[in-house]
Amino acid sequence: MIVVMNSGANKIQIDNVLTRLENLGFKIHLSEGVERTIIGAIGDKSILNEVALEAMPGVEKVVPILQPYKLVSREFKSRDSVVKVDNLEFGGKKIHIMAGPCAVESREQLMESAEAVARAGATILRGGAFKPRTSPYAFQGLEEEGLQMLAEAREKTGLKIVTEVVDPRNVELVAKYADILQIGARNMQNFFLLKEVSIANKPVLLKRGPSATIEEWLMAAEYVMSGGNYNVILCERGVRTFETYLRNTLDLSAVPVAKHLSHLPVIVDPSHAVGKWQFVKPMALAAVAAGADGLIIEVHPNPAQALCDGPQSLTPEHFEELMNDIRKMAETMEREL
Amino acid sequence: MIVVMNSGANKIQIDNVLTRLENLGFKIHLSEGVERTIIGAIGDKSILNEVALEAMPGVEKVVPILQPYKLVSREFKSRDSVVKVDNLEFGGKKIHIMAGPCAVESREQLMESAEAVARAGATILRGGAFKPRTSPYAFQGLEEEGLQMLAEAREKTGLKIVTEVVDPRNVELVAKYADILQIGARNMQNFFLLKEVSIANKPVLLKRGPSATIEEWLMAAEYVMSGGNYNVILCERGVRTFETYLRNTLDLSAVPVAKHLSHLPVIVDPSHAVGKWQFVKPMALAAVAAGADGLIIEVHPNPAQALCDGPQSLTPEHFEELMNDIRKMAETMEREL
Amino acid sequence: MIVVMNSGANKIQIDNVLTRLENLGFKIHLSEGVERTIIGAIGDKSILNEVALEAMPGVEKVVPILQPYKLVSREFKSRDSVVKVDNLEFGGKKIHIMAGPCAVESREQLMESAEAVARAGATILRGGAFKPRTSPYAFQGLEEEGLQMLAEAREKTGLKIVTEVVDPRNVELVAKYADILQIGARNMQNFFLLKEVSIANKPVLLKRGPSATIEEWLMAAEYVMSGGNYNVILCERGVRTFETYLRNTLDLSAVPVAKHLSHLPVIVDPSHAVGKWQFVKPMALAAVAAGADGLIIEVHPNPAQALCDGPQSLTPEHFEELMNDIRKMAETMEREL
Amino acid sequence: MIVVMNSGANKIQIDNVLTRLENLGFKIHLSEGVERTIIGAIGDKSILNEVALEAMPGVEKVVPILQPYKLVSREFKSRDSVVKVDNLEFGGKKIHIMAGPCAVESREQLMESAEAVARAGATILRGGAFKPRTSPYAFQGLEEEGLQMLAEAREKTGLKIVTEVVDPRNVELVAKYADILQIGARNMQNFFLLKEVSIANKPVLLKRGPSATIEEWLMAAEYVMSGGNYNVILCERGVRTFETYLRNTLDLSAVPVAKHLSHLPVIVDPSHAVGKWQFVKPMALAAVAAGADGLIIEVHPNPAQALCDGPQSLTPEHFEELMNDIRKMAETMEREL
Repeated sequence: MIVVMNSGANKIQIDNVLTRLENLGFKIHLSEGVERTIIGAIGDKSILNEVALEAMPGVEKVVPILQPYKLVSREFKSRDSVVKVDNLEFGGKKIHIMAGPCAVESREQLMESAEAVARAGATILRGGAFKPRTSPYAFQGLEEEGLQMLAEAREKTGLKIVTEVVDPRNVELVAKYADILQIGARNMQNFFLLKEVSIANKPVLLKRGPSATIEEWLMAAEYVMSGGNYNVILCERGVRTFETYLRNTLDLSAVPVAKHLSHLPVIVDPSHAVGKWQFVKPMALAAVAAGADGLIIEVHPNPAQALCDGPQSLTPEHFEELMNDIRKMAETMEREL
Repeated sequence: MIVVMNSGANKIQIDNVLTRLENLGFKIHLSEGVERTIIGAIGDKSILNEVALEAMPGVEKVVPILQPYKLVSREFKSRDSVVKVDNLEFGGKKIHIMAGPCAVESREQLMESAEAVARAGATILRGGAFKPRTSPYAFQGLEEEGLQMLAEAREKTGLKIVTEVVDPRNVELVAKYADILQIGARNMQNFFLLKEVSIANKPVLLKRGPSATIEEWLMAAEYVMSGGNYNVILCERGVRTFETYLRNTLDLSAVPVAKHLSHLPVIVDPSHAVGKWQFVKPMALAAVAAGADGLIIEVHPNPAQALCDGPQSLTPEHFEELMNDIRKMAETMEREL
Repeated sequence: MIVVMNSGANKIQIDNVLTRLENLGFKIHLSEGVERTIIGAIGDKSILNEVALEAMPGVEKVVPILQPYKLVSREFKSRDSVVKVDNLEFGGKKIHIMAGPCAVESREQLMESAEAVARAGATILRGGAFKPRTSPYAFQGLEEEGLQMLAEAREKTGLKIVTEVVDPRNVELVAKYADILQIGARNMQNFFLLKEVSIANKPVLLKRGPSATIEEWLMAAEYVMSGGNYNVILCERGVRTFETYLRNTLDLSAVPVAKHLSHLPVIVDPSHAVGKWQFVKPMALAAVAAGADGLIIEVHPNPAQALCDGPQSLTPEHFEELMNDIRKMAETMEREL
Repeated sequence: MIVVMNSGANKIQIDNVLTRLENLGFKIHLSEGVERTIIGAIGDKSILNEVALEAMPGVEKVVPILQPYKLVSREFKSRDSVVKVDNLEFGGKKIHIMAGPCAVESREQLMESAEAVARAGATILRGGAFKPRTSPYAFQGLEEEGLQMLAEAREKTGLKIVTEVVDPRNVELVAKYADILQIGARNMQNFFLLKEVSIANKPVLLKRGPSATIEEWLMAAEYVMSGGNYNVILCERGVRTFETYLRNTLDLSAVPVAKHLSHLPVIVDPSHAVGKWQFVKPMALAAVAAGADGLIIEVHPNPAQALCDGPQSLTPEHFEELMNDIRKMAETMEREL
């Protein structure tokens, strides 16, 4: 940590900062320049969050040098983590495709979706049983009934199940059915939910919040890991910007950056990012080219009748075509489906 | 709702959209221009969320005409709502100042803060007992013990209590102690928490999310109101932008806009918006000038020792000075403290 | 255009709007709903910019239906445009790579760069002779001397030349030397510069502004085309967001969107977007996978000594490796270098 | 400047950075921690722009400590600058109101506007003769004829004139007529235009770019001052964010921040920020409360007929009412009109 003092900071102010830091057990480097005094402080970074140095008189700013996260970082673990979902491995050579409808609407809709995506080569079925909707008047999900249908689809197709958990009170319930617990973008900083999944015995798919920096996203992963659950898969799904033509702006550079800073696998959700099915294909291919370890894609047997996110859902036919293109792209990247 | 068809949309595609809309009970206006066919649809807007028209072939875009919220809108209720917190009224002539520390840290710290802000003219004491922190290693709050201290401070000073509720599981607990339930910015779209406070018998202070549009903020208020709790106070606290000098960019235009679209009272949190105490005063005064019905301000007896948000906390002395300036500003705006 | 009236708009206000629109030659559709009166207006869209309907009493909002641009749109020209740069074609099967240093610094530096990028398979040499720098104290370019060096490098290597024009006063000078006139991101809405290049007899590389919507970018292209210069190549180079780890957030979805709305070729600048050479490769490959017609990449023989943008420049060795990967990626996309 | 080395940086890499810095004349502080080596470098900051340290092997990041600007900073000049526009003083006790139409459309329109704003107490007339418009098909201004009308209005009313200069080629022409040269938001980083106004003998009104950080805005002012023109007035006019209800998001915190970092006067343009006249008044008052030294406001005798920005223009009647409120607000702030 570097503490930059004001140009007019006096000796007493500087001494107060030094004393404060020394009392907290930091090792100090003092550098008195002509224009500024700069204090370097080395020590236990977990204390730093508690220290309001910027509130001390004479302090201009505090520049952190080390990243605020630990367990998620490449420095903690330099080799790529492989997260196992039963027999599937995320973060290895294989690229995994999660696919299915936004919401579980009915047994028929789900089974038709599951069979279609399994046939095309997906390994994981997605589908929401609890839906966080911006409108209180919109369809809110089938809840446990939906979870049971997902489990039934798993029986039939062999696909693993990923589904969103939205309330700390039903983490246990969802974990009973799901193979992967999804934390949605809006809940990325719902710390009480993160704590619950951090003690669940299931891998976690952690979506980046629409206005979360990469650092905040990794801090959310740190929450989960600090509770003991090391099986975290990161998921970029678009960020909020001034551009309005598409629903979000997919930040594909977040893939190599997250993999540079962290050892965790990273997948991409092109469907939520673009919001219009026509643009899912180019962004899915670009995601694989950027180094993604997987994709999560919305597929619905009849998008125009979907109760949720129809405009961004692929038909089974379009999904099958896309899978063929992804297969070729995976080979180019020396990976495989 | 206006449905704009592609320039190349054919008759069958247009007819399919018309049929779909008619089956849903909409009244239709067809307008066939040289470059585009446009379909106007009038009907029950609560159905619109369920209809994935943009997924239908030939549809270019769907333009909603009416706002997606109802109970919060000026059209539902044209006169300003006055939200009562015991004997205090929000949204009337009085401007209310909520003040106190970011977190309840100890009995002494809280009592000293409470007495100072009461003396200066605040009517409500703020203080967090449950703290959502971006780092799992930061101070997380005193929990129920903190709530008890808040209640004790109320006894002593007569101040009302506002405190954040962060987990649907302890809405009831917090409501036992607090006069106002605060929904923090990161939880603005935590719909399961919103549902719980919507059935609690306490006024709700709803902070705008750091990347929420005003419309989404009003939709979150609609969630609370649609559950039966009409006592919602909106709170602007800065949005996330590309500017990094301050913590957030305080969007003061959200005050007159929210009051134009909605009948609910609107207050402003300048402390979280700016993140540095030096800038709290100009933004507090500007908020009142922009029409805010109140302010929520961080005050700490010793900011440099604060366990949370010290750099943005005012000392009791600075707060007292600010209250004098706010009093003059309130008069200029034909309001009063 | 759809004009939505306030819920309380009276008959006189509605009539005034109707009269105004009719006087301007629009054909009118009136739709009186229970909650709102809506007026559809069909007519010459070039007039719409001049009409301040939102300033008329009773008008709530005006929703444009047609895009504000014409010549750049797919509706004006449904087939992809191929822009010729001498014998090279942009927008056809070939993917073109522009490469070279940020700034022309010296004869040696430029020749070494030019030979390296030609050898690796680039077809166009980039290099700035006039540099728009955020600091008045930074290197500002070699000006005409730099242009002469670029021309000399073209002689030697057969590469075409792209270089930025920054001042309407020297469009003619730059056009004397360059094969492609580059409009930099900060000048995307420098309309007086756009007008000058619109009458120059050279293709234009139009970078998207860091906070420009795709629609504004296409409007800037319309400026150039409306002056008679139809040879416009669009270039996505990252937008400004709240994320700070990289210099900008590369918006790769802008590639398929711009190609959907427009017939113009689109290339990508991964170097300026990421700002760190380590991330250029994944974003270059992702750009091709997203459908880009070309790339523009910074290469410097000695990045650590570069006078401009060294941290984002590839060495010739890294560039050669990248070109091999791009070649494979181009094949996967059924294109070629 | 602080150079943070990678956790794995080796001795040779560290030595190379040290040698490079020493050769450039920097004084070095080396701090070898357990997790990172950190190098502090003190020296001539004008060299820093040229040094691509981040391109050197082993360097993780470079953290600048000093601001990149000099002449605009409080450290260069601690007391507020007062910029004189003939006999008017910006940055002193007086608050100046600039008002008038977006564009000069005709002699009648301009004279009527000028007389109205003078009567209400404005001291400066605004009006564009050259208009940068996003559409090539929109009204582009009356050019020199418009400037002559502005000069005539000055004769008649005694108001000073502020008008935008958009092209380096006509800075001299505009300076012949105007009392203040306005640099529009889109031209804030048009460095070749900045250089021209930096040698003009007229005060400059420098609008903040819609996506410019405060630091970049101050760097643009540094451009003007570094050319010898110290008479710069800063103008906040709203930034681009994800919020779409209003045209821009007015960043009023930029007022106290710019005044904290710099000695220059700061005014606010509420009209362009909000884009709808109904919201001009609260934001104008809030701007004065935030400490603005002046305002620039659009007024048009007949907003619905305006050729430019009608929806955000006040009528003369509304402007007069607003001036009365501003007068009271100025007194509250211990300033005067």
